[in-house]
Amino acid sequence: MSPASPETTLPAPITAPPSKDELAARLAQVQRRMRDEGLDVYVSFDPVNVYYLTHFANNVHERPFLLLIPQQGTPTILAPLLETSHVRARALCDLEYATYYEFPAPEGENWWDVYAQLIDSGARVGIEPAMPAGILERTPGKTTVSDIIDEARIVKSAYEIGRNAHACQVVELGHEKLLETSRPGAIVGSVYAAASGAMMARILADIPRANLMVTRTVGAVWPPSLSDDPHIIPTFDTQIEEAGPHVTIAFCQVDGYGVELERTFFLGSVPEAARAPFDAMFEARARAFELARPGADMGSIDTAVRKLIHDRGYGDRILHRTGHGFGITGHEAPYLAEGYHRDLEPGMLVSIEPGIYIPGLGGFRHSDTVLITESGAVSLTHAPETLDELTISL
Amino acid sequence: MSPASPETTLPAPITAPPSKDELAARLAQVQRRMRDEGLDVYVSFDPVNVYYLTHFANNVHERPFLLLIPQQGTPTILAPLLETSHVRARALCDLEYATYYEFPAPEGENWWDVYAQLIDSGARVGIEPAMPAGILERTPGKTTVSDIIDEARIVKSAYEIGRNAHACQVVELGHEKLLETSRPGAIVGSVYAAASGAMMARILADIPRANLMVTRTVGAVWPPSLSDDPHIIPTFDTQIEEAGPHVTIAFCQVDGYGVELERTFFLGSVPEAARAPFDAMFEARARAFELARPGADMGSIDTAVRKLIHDRGYGDRILHRTGHGFGITGHEAPYLAEGYHRDLEPGMLVSIEPGIYIPGLGGFRHSDTVLITESGAVSLTHAPETLDELTISL
Repeated sequence: MSPASPETTLPAPITAPPSKDELAARLAQVQRRMRDEGLDVYVSFDPVNVYYLTHFANNVHERPFLLLIPQQGTPTILAPLLETSHVRARALCDLEYATYYEFPAPEGENWWDVYAQLIDSGARVGIEPAMPAGILERTPGKTTVSDIIDEARIVKSAYEIGRNAHACQVVELGHEKLLETSRPGAIVGSVYAAASGAMMARILADIPRANLMVTRTVGAVWPPSLSDDPHIIPTFDTQIEEAGPHVTIAFCQVDGYGVELERTFFLGSVPEAARAPFDAMFEARARAFELARPGADMGSIDTAVRKLIHDRGYGDRILHRTGHGFGITGHEAPYLAEGYHRDLEPGMLVSIEPGIYIPGLGGFRHSDTVLITESGAVSLTHAPETLDELTISL
Repeated sequence: MSPASPETTLPAPITAPPSKDELAARLAQVQRRMRDEGLDVYVSFDPVNVYYLTHFANNVHERPFLLLIPQQGTPTILAPLLETSHVRARALCDLEYATYYEFPAPEGENWWDVYAQLIDSGARVGIEPAMPAGILERTPGKTTVSDIIDEARIVKSAYEIGRNAHACQVVELGHEKLLETSRPGAIVGSVYAAASGAMMARILADIPRANLMVTRTVGAVWPPSLSDDPHIIPTFDTQIEEAGPHVTIAFCQVDGYGVELERTFFLGSVPEAARAPFDAMFEARARAFELARPGADMGSIDTAVRKLIHDRGYGDRILHRTGHGFGITGHEAPYLAEGYHRDLEPGMLVSIEPGIYIPGLGGFRHSDTVLITESGAVSLTHAPETLDELTISL
């Protein structure tokens, strides 16, 4: 069995907006954690967390949006006048509204003047690690950094898994286009256009009213001269080369739900020097799939995977951890990373993507979006996997 | 003379990357401000500010990039191992490098362990209002929030003005496409594709190696049923309607330099009720252009513009300030806003965009990207302006 073959039935894709009950359950979980931590109020600034709880998406700019969550009852959103009708049009949960006019504003009419009236000066206030210092210094009460909402997001509901499963269908289509259009001499820009365009067309066919603020498609290829540098961004005119290793990235965020699919592939031929690192990456990936079961410590999975790569002679060619979580974003907790000690649970959604990067030769990495189930890791993304399948005839 | 006609020669567009001297001058200005404020170190987290000083662009994720600026000498960038070669490939200034492996990481090997070694515990440390609370609590020394780099960015160099002037040519092209393709029954998605595609094609023709992390094009239209809500985002399938007021947004960030161009237009006919608010907006805009001269207090300009709109009977239909700055981003200081007391200076780049929003009728707003020169406000963007010009025959 290949590591990415599902043993169990894949979750059914969902494209509908969340129900009020779904959002109420998310809020209830946050409020439960607030009671455990003894917090009177939790203030969310991070637009990802605000979207998770309300279905309202905003771009961060100099006019803040703050979601104030009481330990019990309905949250209040503090938003600029300019956006009040926008919030009302998009939010799908119960909300109270507090409005300020503008930033900057005359003395006494700034957002912090309204904010100060919404929280008791004696309150115990939880804030996100992401809260900007300029907002923190205006926050009333006794503040504590605590990532309660990020923690609540780690284990997915059936609804969330359905949204991510739909996004995985989109990213599979984009990845097919990447492999179809990558030929020596083609530029990354045209490959990008084909893949990201196909994904966007599919999203809009499935969800014509998708919120475009949280919908994004990326399809790119790192040719061998760049693929040892996984986070450099190819320019539009970067050329696809002969042979490989080329490394793909297909990513999409579909109406607020993010996933990825990545492969290492070759055009025409495989350089001899590339076979051993490909095999080592492939083995490391299989090991990670095998270990990724409920109850496994995530840090220990990364340690075992790193050890395998080290034993194959590439210990100094590792640049990153084995994986990260997905959900609203394409990059979030939990992490398959040394030093992160927490057990996997059913309902977590993680990437499995151990990588090997060799300057002068290139990069080796597959990545899938993987659901942890009672019976183990089930990939929600499917694409060619083996060196044979990923050596494309010219 | 129409308010947007240039009295002086427009600045020549620039598409080349910044010289080392340009970046050194930006750093020198920041370090001069640090001396004035008695800061030993300034820590920049905001990717916009890091780009401004280094020409290296990053996406914020859970692995922080921190630029540590000493009062004199070369800054140090603290970056994850995964990104070190990426930073080296893109940064165009002198830099020292400090690396951490990954986040999360085993105890003693986290980013904060390296960070702690880079700043003396007794140092006076300036931080941005944007620094996240989770990084602030790990920052050594005595921290003070101070937006030194944001302030340094307010008055543009000749190089920056040339970059923004080029971006204005791009946005003018995008805006032409918006007006060409907006017809009753067309969907916003197709208008968006035509405008944003034309802008992107032009950018890549002019700058084939544009950094795609800081290159973005947006072209959209709010039909009259939405245009009273200026920050709601139309969905892909939103239909362009008969008559108006429709409001356009053409925005682009070209290889890191952002500008905008917006107009209120009508298809076929102008509803009688729309004439007076259009005229009031048009007059308010002319007043703002006239008042926007070196030495004018920015808050007072907004007050005068608001008063004019109020006198025309639309005082309760104002949702936002008269304008905001441009530069690296499309939204930054300085602000033409009540309560913001600072004088305009030559080299500032601002939007002039007073708006009137009437539920049931629609929105009225033109916006231009405007350079403040010794002789007054010079629009770098050009498009039809009058009600006649903006009533398109069907």
